Amino acid sequence: MNKLDHIRIVLCQTSHPGNIGAAARAMKTMGLSRLYLVRPRKFPHAESYAMASGATDVLENIVVCETLEQALQGCSLVIGLTARKRELSHDAISPREAAAEALVIATSQEAALVFGGETSGLSNEELILCQRLAHIPANPKYSSLNLAAAVQVLAYELYMAAEAPQAAVKRLQLATHDEVEGFYIHLEQTLIDIGFLDPALPKRLMSRLRRLFTRARLQKEEVNILRGILKSISKK
Amino acid sequence: MNKLDHIRIVLCQTSHPGNIGAAARAMKTMGLSRLYLVRPRKFPHAESYAMASGATDVLENIVVCETLEQALQGCSLVIGLTARKRELSHDAISPREAAAEALVIATSQEAALVFGGETSGLSNEELILCQRLAHIPANPKYSSLNLAAAVQVLAYELYMAAEAPQAAVKRLQLATHDEVEGFYIHLEQTLIDIGFLDPALPKRLMSRLRRLFTRARLQKEEVNILRGILKSISKK
Repeated sequence: MNKLDHIRIVLCQTSHPGNIGAAARAMKTMGLSRLYLVRPRKFPHAESYAMASGATDVLENIVVCETLEQALQGCSLVIGLTARKRELSHDAISPREAAAEALVIATSQEAALVFGGETSGLSNEELILCQRLAHIPANPKYSSLNLAAAVQVLAYELYMAAEAPQAAVKRLQLATHDEVEGFYIHLEQTLIDIGFLDPALPKRLMSRLRRLFTRARLQKEEVNILRGILKSISKK
Repeated sequence: MNKLDHIRIVLCQTSHPGNIGAAARAMKTMGLSRLYLVRPRKFPHAESYAMASGATDVLENIVVCETLEQALQGCSLVIGLTARKRELSHDAISPREAAAEALVIATSQEAALVFGGETSGLSNEELILCQRLAHIPANPKYSSLNLAAAVQVLAYELYMAAEAPQAAVKRLQLATHDEVEGFYIHLEQTLIDIGFLDPALPKRLMSRLRRLFTRARLQKEEVNILRGILKSISKK
């Protein structure tokens, strides 16, 4: 099962039909396919098709609704996107957090990301239906993302969270836990041998080095290189 | 100083002037302002201004160049965006990694992100000028992001890395470019001294190690620890 199939994008009262097409294209590039429209000003429309490029299948499967409630039927999690200052309490989450939350739900249930119209965003009545608010961090002097660009950012974060790490892990061949631990033991012994680490007074040295290498997420080949260096130090 | 001011976006041979405007808007929402064009098909053009919305200042400061070399003058790091399969060796980095690398450079030097034309992407001659390739992970069946949407994704990652975690960055006190470069020189010399690196046959060892430590984003104190270890090795 593809988790992304359990996530719908809902566009409320979209003014420009071109944005609907561009949003469909943005979705398809990131493996999303389920687009809902609530009272679009103009749809269907030739401009939507022009902007969708090769994503006409997404347009053809669009569900057009009269109310946001209808568009959210069956959803266990509803995240509303907002750019308005007054709604930006400390509770508004980032696109990355929103993607993570949506994917947790999407393993077995439905989740929705809801975008307001181009000019005024989500209305108060629409916001009430959202369990979570999300906000795309932006230039405080000019935070006006194009609607399809905002969809692209959220779709990208969803894809990164759902698909990319798997591919990346395979491609990079991350070192296993045992391999990394073997490196730390080797590193610690070498640091003792060269007199940098006093085993009677180790302080936090190894935990600091562990943190550094944990952030880097060591690959198999990198562990081999690092242990090769440690071996060369011993032979010196 | 704002690090984002040290990062330029370079669009090569853009066909649609609307995309130039949309890219300018995407940049401005994420605090970027420096847009370079290499042989755009049509610019200046009314469509660029229409799509830029409130980002006309970015359009007005555009630098138009005849060659990519001209657009890259003064850059210490050049990252090329590619979607083509055959360039996707294991070396292509993600937008998140590209943003992290660009920001390390942007503390004191200039970095460029280079985007190819809408239909064929970057040419081989253009790719040769890029020190790094980056790739936006996408649906393998439909990976055709709109040009401005691709700019939005990279600009978003830059903003997230530069601005959103500011508090964290301050707390961590990242090492400066010079400090990190000083460490690499010290590391390389030590690897030669212990016989691990043959200066006559260096292969890609240093670039692999650089990549590892770039991913970790070294802190000042970590550079001090690592150089302390290198000193102890020399004394052994």
